[in-house]
Amino acid sequence: MRPERLKSLLERFQRGEITMEQILGHLERAPFEDLGFARIDHHRAVRQGYPEVVYCPGKTADQISEICASIAARGDGLLATRADEAVRRRLADEHPRIAVNHLARTAYLPPDEPVEVEVRGNVLIVTAGTSDLPAAEEAAVAARAMGNPVRRLDDVGVAGIHRLLAGQEELREATVIIVVAGMEAALASVVGGLVAAPVVAVPTSVGYGASFNGLAALLGLLNSCAPGVTVVNIDNGYGAAVAATRINRLP
Amino acid sequence: MRPERLKSLLERFQRGEITMEQILGHLERAPFEDLGFARIDHHRAVRQGYPEVVYCPGKTADQISEICASIAARGDGLLATRADEAVRRRLADEHPRIAVNHLARTAYLPPDEPVEVEVRGNVLIVTAGTSDLPAAEEAAVAARAMGNPVRRLDDVGVAGIHRLLAGQEELREATVIIVVAGMEAALASVVGGLVAAPVVAVPTSVGYGASFNGLAALLGLLNSCAPGVTVVNIDNGYGAAVAATRINRLP
Amino acid sequence: MRPERLKSLLERFQRGEITMEQILGHLERAPFEDLGFARIDHHRAVRQGYPEVVYCPGKTADQISEICASIAARGDGLLATRADEAVRRRLADEHPRIAVNHLARTAYLPPDEPVEVEVRGNVLIVTAGTSDLPAAEEAAVAARAMGNPVRRLDDVGVAGIHRLLAGQEELREATVIIVVAGMEAALASVVGGLVAAPVVAVPTSVGYGASFNGLAALLGLLNSCAPGVTVVNIDNGYGAAVAATRINRLP
Amino acid sequence: MRPERLKSLLERFQRGEITMEQILGHLERAPFEDLGFARIDHHRAVRQGYPEVVYCPGKTADQISEICASIAARGDGLLATRADEAVRRRLADEHPRIAVNHLARTAYLPPDEPVEVEVRGNVLIVTAGTSDLPAAEEAAVAARAMGNPVRRLDDVGVAGIHRLLAGQEELREATVIIVVAGMEAALASVVGGLVAAPVVAVPTSVGYGASFNGLAALLGLLNSCAPGVTVVNIDNGYGAAVAATRINRLP
Amino acid sequence: MRPERLKSLLERFQRGEITMEQILGHLERAPFEDLGFARIDHHRAVRQGYPEVVYCPGKTADQISEICASIAARGDGLLATRADEAVRRRLADEHPRIAVNHLARTAYLPPDEPVEVEVRGNVLIVTAGTSDLPAAEEAAVAARAMGNPVRRLDDVGVAGIHRLLAGQEELREATVIIVVAGMEAALASVVGGLVAAPVVAVPTSVGYGASFNGLAALLGLLNSCAPGVTVVNIDNGYGAAVAATRINRLP
Amino acid sequence: MRPERLKSLLERFQRGEITMEQILGHLERAPFEDLGFARIDHHRAVRQGYPEVVYCPGKTADQISEICASIAARGDGLLATRADEAVRRRLADEHPRIAVNHLARTAYLPPDEPVEVEVRGNVLIVTAGTSDLPAAEEAAVAARAMGNPVRRLDDVGVAGIHRLLAGQEELREATVIIVVAGMEAALASVVGGLVAAPVVAVPTSVGYGASFNGLAALLGLLNSCAPGVTVVNIDNGYGAAVAATRINRLP
Amino acid sequence: MRPERLKSLLERFQRGEITMEQILGHLERAPFEDLGFARIDHHRAVRQGYPEVVYCPGKTADQISEICASIAARGDGLLATRADEAVRRRLADEHPRIAVNHLARTAYLPPDEPVEVEVRGNVLIVTAGTSDLPAAEEAAVAARAMGNPVRRLDDVGVAGIHRLLAGQEELREATVIIVVAGMEAALASVVGGLVAAPVVAVPTSVGYGASFNGLAALLGLLNSCAPGVTVVNIDNGYGAAVAATRINRLP
Amino acid sequence: MRPERLKSLLERFQRGEITMEQILGHLERAPFEDLGFARIDHHRAVRQGYPEVVYCPGKTADQISEICASIAARGDGLLATRADEAVRRRLADEHPRIAVNHLARTAYLPPDEPVEVEVRGNVLIVTAGTSDLPAAEEAAVAARAMGNPVRRLDDVGVAGIHRLLAGQEELREATVIIVVAGMEAALASVVGGLVAAPVVAVPTSVGYGASFNGLAALLGLLNSCAPGVTVVNIDNGYGAAVAATRINRLP
Repeated sequence: MRPERLKSLLERFQRGEITMEQILGHLERAPFEDLGFARIDHHRAVRQGYPEVVYCPGKTADQISEICASIAARGDGLLATRADEAVRRRLADEHPRIAVNHLARTAYLPPDEPVEVEVRGNVLIVTAGTSDLPAAEEAAVAARAMGNPVRRLDDVGVAGIHRLLAGQEELREATVIIVVAGMEAALASVVGGLVAAPVVAVPTSVGYGASFNGLAALLGLLNSCAPGVTVVNIDNGYGAAVAATRINRLP
Repeated sequence: MRPERLKSLLERFQRGEITMEQILGHLERAPFEDLGFARIDHHRAVRQGYPEVVYCPGKTADQISEICASIAARGDGLLATRADEAVRRRLADEHPRIAVNHLARTAYLPPDEPVEVEVRGNVLIVTAGTSDLPAAEEAAVAARAMGNPVRRLDDVGVAGIHRLLAGQEELREATVIIVVAGMEAALASVVGGLVAAPVVAVPTSVGYGASFNGLAALLGLLNSCAPGVTVVNIDNGYGAAVAATRINRLP
Repeated sequence: MRPERLKSLLERFQRGEITMEQILGHLERAPFEDLGFARIDHHRAVRQGYPEVVYCPGKTADQISEICASIAARGDGLLATRADEAVRRRLADEHPRIAVNHLARTAYLPPDEPVEVEVRGNVLIVTAGTSDLPAAEEAAVAARAMGNPVRRLDDVGVAGIHRLLAGQEELREATVIIVVAGMEAALASVVGGLVAAPVVAVPTSVGYGASFNGLAALLGLLNSCAPGVTVVNIDNGYGAAVAATRINRLP
Repeated sequence: MRPERLKSLLERFQRGEITMEQILGHLERAPFEDLGFARIDHHRAVRQGYPEVVYCPGKTADQISEICASIAARGDGLLATRADEAVRRRLADEHPRIAVNHLARTAYLPPDEPVEVEVRGNVLIVTAGTSDLPAAEEAAVAARAMGNPVRRLDDVGVAGIHRLLAGQEELREATVIIVVAGMEAALASVVGGLVAAPVVAVPTSVGYGASFNGLAALLGLLNSCAPGVTVVNIDNGYGAAVAATRINRLP
Repeated sequence: MRPERLKSLLERFQRGEITMEQILGHLERAPFEDLGFARIDHHRAVRQGYPEVVYCPGKTADQISEICASIAARGDGLLATRADEAVRRRLADEHPRIAVNHLARTAYLPPDEPVEVEVRGNVLIVTAGTSDLPAAEEAAVAARAMGNPVRRLDDVGVAGIHRLLAGQEELREATVIIVVAGMEAALASVVGGLVAAPVVAVPTSVGYGASFNGLAALLGLLNSCAPGVTVVNIDNGYGAAVAATRINRLP
Repeated sequence: MRPERLKSLLERFQRGEITMEQILGHLERAPFEDLGFARIDHHRAVRQGYPEVVYCPGKTADQISEICASIAARGDGLLATRADEAVRRRLADEHPRIAVNHLARTAYLPPDEPVEVEVRGNVLIVTAGTSDLPAAEEAAVAARAMGNPVRRLDDVGVAGIHRLLAGQEELREATVIIVVAGMEAALASVVGGLVAAPVVAVPTSVGYGASFNGLAALLGLLNSCAPGVTVVNIDNGYGAAVAATRINRLP
Repeated sequence: MRPERLKSLLERFQRGEITMEQILGHLERAPFEDLGFARIDHHRAVRQGYPEVVYCPGKTADQISEICASIAARGDGLLATRADEAVRRRLADEHPRIAVNHLARTAYLPPDEPVEVEVRGNVLIVTAGTSDLPAAEEAAVAARAMGNPVRRLDDVGVAGIHRLLAGQEELREATVIIVVAGMEAALASVVGGLVAAPVVAVPTSVGYGASFNGLAALLGLLNSCAPGVTVVNIDNGYGAAVAATRINRLP
Repeated sequence: MRPERLKSLLERFQRGEITMEQILGHLERAPFEDLGFARIDHHRAVRQGYPEVVYCPGKTADQISEICASIAARGDGLLATRADEAVRRRLADEHPRIAVNHLARTAYLPPDEPVEVEVRGNVLIVTAGTSDLPAAEEAAVAARAMGNPVRRLDDVGVAGIHRLLAGQEELREATVIIVVAGMEAALASVVGGLVAAPVVAVPTSVGYGASFNGLAALLGLLNSCAPGVTVVNIDNGYGAAVAATRINRLP
């Protein structure tokens, strides 16, 4: 509770405008309000244009359906991630306004009333190859849902470096860059060396045996020779989108 | 090469103001100038307030001394990282203006003329415990050398959560937060849940046997339950500082 | 065999009250009776309120059915863990009194006559998120079956620290706390810092790629910055329940 | 802040017995007092017979000396762990009453006035072989410093099972058992099968190449076939002692 | 080729009893006959009572059927390992004399004429729990097929040490012991400490998450505190049987 | 205690030839004598020609000296392994009859009176390269100390397969073969394919970076394509010698 | 752009044969043409006899069908790898000239007009066992598609070294050797020691538990005691074929 | 033995020109001569311009000195690798003609008479950064010692891609390329995409914590998105040089 509000409460109590019971009620809730600066808690998040996110794995279709119905009823917007095909179809049936993305495995229901958020620029999502698209699409859907203009630069893996160099315009104009890459994930190092903008890298689980489900890409990115490249979990497009949004909403 | 400049070159060639040889010379260098948007290349970096960085491991004291002398002669500023004690002492002897930080294992020589860079706010460095200080200090020295105001919140590990909650003011006022934590690195998750600002996490190699030299902290951070926390390499305070600078210099 | 009993046996033999054959019979069984203090052997366990446990993986439905029928016939109580849906349905059909828990993947048949065991207090099971519920439910079912009052504090992951702080009453009143957490498992460190009670942590296999099926959570818990947190195997809710029971039954 | 105290404060404020400023002062500190149930925070810990612990690795001898001097001045008791030989000698010189244990690498200064803590019984520390002694000694020193009577059963590795069976008396009489074992750490499984008491296991980094510095022992313990054995970090005798103390102080 | 045979060949050639072409034919095959001491090559193996082994994974049912038909036609005996249920049923249909073992996942067709091999004694297979039975059965089937009398001691895991001690007769009478154990595989250490006979250990992939599919058991066995325990691959009952046979056939 | 001996004891007690106290004394020691079949316990081991072994790592020179003095005084023979140079020199000074092997890092003192043990044949130790010699020498010293005739076949790594083929005589005449190999440890597969004798393989920690201190060799040996090759811990020449002795002493 | 072409362009511009707009158009495309020496880019690759490769995993049958149709229309040749059975059947239906290899999981459509490429000799593919055939076949199909004569030497694993020695003719005549081996992959070391030709090794994911899906073979190959053996990813027959082609096409 | 030679031997024996003893002598040595095609055996190697290589780790200075003296006496040339400073100095003292390279940690003594070997072209060694120089120098020294012209392209890591593009001339003219790179080793992918020549990659152990001593670089290279890049062990410059020589000497 902010000091001013506390003071005013006490003055009103002193003046008898509120009862002992009322002031006790306020003060007992205080510790949580004191934590009110935790801006990502449920209600604030929604009011600020973060959709409520439902991570589907480990939940039954019925559970997901019920959770989504309850969120949708509030009108705050909803993003289901890692939804399998059956779940996506069911959500699409149940919510006519929902936008399903089969590649990203997402279903997005915008809030009833659009939320205006101020961002500094666009988020550019760069992918090394077509197998990186699912994570990239997840990042794109999530980033848009959080109010970021999203641009794309696809299939510019470093084994054909001219393709990446052809994208210099897009790289130069990006406010935040999300690099999505599997195998050895060399792309982030080249991009990180070409731009001064923040680069968030998503390792993907793409590759032959010794990729060990993305471990090779993860280690590659953590060891990037381009300083200042940061990394999120394997295939975690959603996490990269949140990281990019944290940056793009800087005051 | 920018189109306008190319056109003007060709016009001057057409008018005979420059010879075939001269225009060939210009055009052959063109591909590299076209890459001029690589804003982190050597000279630009220095002009923009990034010091030249010398990573000391694997180099002899003589080599480091020589490299630093040559950089210092240009007057552009110099940051030596991971310098052992002997190297730090020698650099201090050779460069009276150099600032040695024994905890961070750095030696920093500011440029002869201060470089003005515009940043959005301060970088807050948060540590879990005293053993995380070396990486945190490296981050602090590097961040300051790149023009960021740096604030600190030390020893706020989550086993005593009240200590962290007492730092809410600092957390709320930070533009970018660098969390430095070893062991299980839980701190980043709590911080990431408390703020909406970008959080860059540095796992440290601190801990008993099964920390496996920072692997536990690294995995912990990659799996943070607070979305949008990004991660750099183990003990890589310098990398976190560059990441924070990329963010803090957003136009 | 206890010395007193041995002496009395020998005296009775000396006095001719028992034959050579009888004393030989006693003495040959002695080594095992000497091990009688092994309080967890089959019959004692059951008499003391530990149900007989059937770990289902790797057994066919027929085998499980047969084993359970034989145990049930003794009337001693039975707990089947990690039972898949078909097995759970079948056991429910075959044993009308059995209590199936689909989330925990358990089937529990109480003993015909309730066993009274003395415990010191309640076991509080704390979870970080909904994906941790299967392991938490397994712990809860098993802890109750061994005679512990069980309380719950769910979905209090540290990314929203206010949720955990709201549960201080429950934490303070717990005799033993089982923390169930996946991802980076930071929850155990915060809980371990808030209470003086024993904390047993269960890492879960929940998370994106680099959780490596619970390895991240496991390492996180082993490196907890809160001293005295102990750890069991990944997803091993049953093991945590036994550990809690060992503690809660302290004389 | 407890509701009753809050109510009484407000009544005194209402009656004018305390000023606005005074009540504001009280309420602003409230959030931390509300966290007062965090029983392990600094001052309470000390008052309750937990010595203040200084983990030495990564600190210089000067730093450790200074920290210890300041703690010793308060008279609250002090336990330095993982202190190397030079540090141990120096602390012994500086604090005549300090008890140095070269095997455990500890230095323990009891509080000026002994703290009475109530415990349920003794802590038995069981080791597999002589190479496990350093971690076992660390556990013993720490457990005693926290007020637990400590008993020992050494060198009873399972390759000579008769040695362990000869210790049944000690096993039966223990309230909490700490098993310290390297190599394959089979000892904890046998002990866990013999007793109903809580068993906390410490893997040690003892062994040939494929022990991988204690990883083999750690995995062995996590997979113990004796249910309810819990595990702490590799070589972490101190952590096991705290876990045992949490159990042994159960009300 | 043995020197005597070579000499006799040359003498016959010298005497004109064999032609240049014939002796060349013999000598060109010589290098392989010189390697004749490789006693495990195909034909010798079969003549000596090793059945021909077909490792089924990665082969289609048709391929396995065809291979087995061709081997069976020679009458030399055949052992198919890791055969899935469909393959086992098909082989049983096609070879009326074949003995299928569903637990071991094997199908064994004895040679048309029994092969007498001399062995030193019996092979005792010891298992920790019921989940270790598939590997143990594979070992048993293979060991019998290679002419070893096989005895069993099942379900004697160390968490109930009295069960193992009750089997001392069997342990004492064994010529070679195969210990099959998952989880932490402590059983081999206790057995290895109880007997002087050779002990071959088979780690199994049985266990909760951090068994990492048998890695914990494998490391446990390699680090056994009982000296001279040797180890084969995870779940490799067949390999252990061959190792035991190599020992049991010592001249 | 054997039944016959027990019966005779009781008869003597019945006849009054021994007192209650005497028979109690006998019977109280019984559990251990019942375990008497544990042939590797201390005294039997020594009587049977196993020297007492002192594993030196983690012990101070003083401790080792004292332990060895006490063992030597009994005259039973002593083998110190992994002794560093200072320890080896000191033991050599203190025990004129001790045989120090600098490559094996061992010191061996034969028993005062030679122990005759019956073995089936010789133990052949085969090494891939010169870097494998330390582990091979440790195996050789230990095998000889346990009464096995030892032969050697050195530097026959498979990259020059003709060298190994030249050793066919030695391979054919060996009763047990110990293969010591680092890098990819291919040697054991070739040897295992050439002979029918038992093969015990010792991976060594020899090699470039990705040998990961012997992990590559260890995995290679566990996956040997020659069936029946068994494996001990990395660099564990002593363990291999005990395994070979267990085999070579088969009745 | 090659200097000569650039000069000629400028001369034509100077002479007015091309306009400012035309020369600008040429020059703006120049950076990519300057990178023209990247001989593996799309069109050159095809013209030089590298088929276009479609890596199927992660693509739907419809996507693969469409991509292949578009490539086939150009008449340049097409190689689909890792195609599952349904995809292979569909491609076979859609392209009558396509050659499907079920073992290799490939479908290969030769270019409409054969491309002549000059190679230095043949590529010999050597396998250890039948389980290595899928990767070997993939290598064979790909190598042939890139214009290399391919020879085979199958099932010559080192456990029966005579089989490999019998293939000395083929080994001696090979220009490049691809060794495909799982388990411990010892084959490459023996082959590498027998020949002076380049050896490219493919680890396969064949084996029991501790092969860890090819990790054992991979580490084995990287640590080969035969110098100069190079390694590609696990099961990556295609990669080995490209490596062999790079070598076999040396000018 | 070649068939023709065998036939002629037999004819001479038939004609009585050689005795039984003589022909037996020839034939008994035959198996080894048949392996004569093993071109890398000692004497051939030396005659063909491969120096004899002494890998120093694990050998004492005295041993190395003695081995080198003996090789030098033959005049065949000698390459000592991984020699520490003391060894290098000593070898330089003992062999005036030896060329010591402190960065590569090598000492090279050319053969007394130069050996002419025919190679196809030059070997280009490309490094990412200065920390990769030790492995690169080892490769360079070894490649030159085996008769390859060596060219260099240093410090062209992909974070500054323009530096690499500036080296296109060198890349285009190389016959074989050795890429030496640590951290994420992205360089090999870019190079592999730019050229059609064989690329052998050497991961180096350079980097921050999560490089895990070169594991990150190794995995990165194995997963290179540029097909046909092959890999040797971490820091194994010598191995890469042998691989390049095998290629460069193709007939």
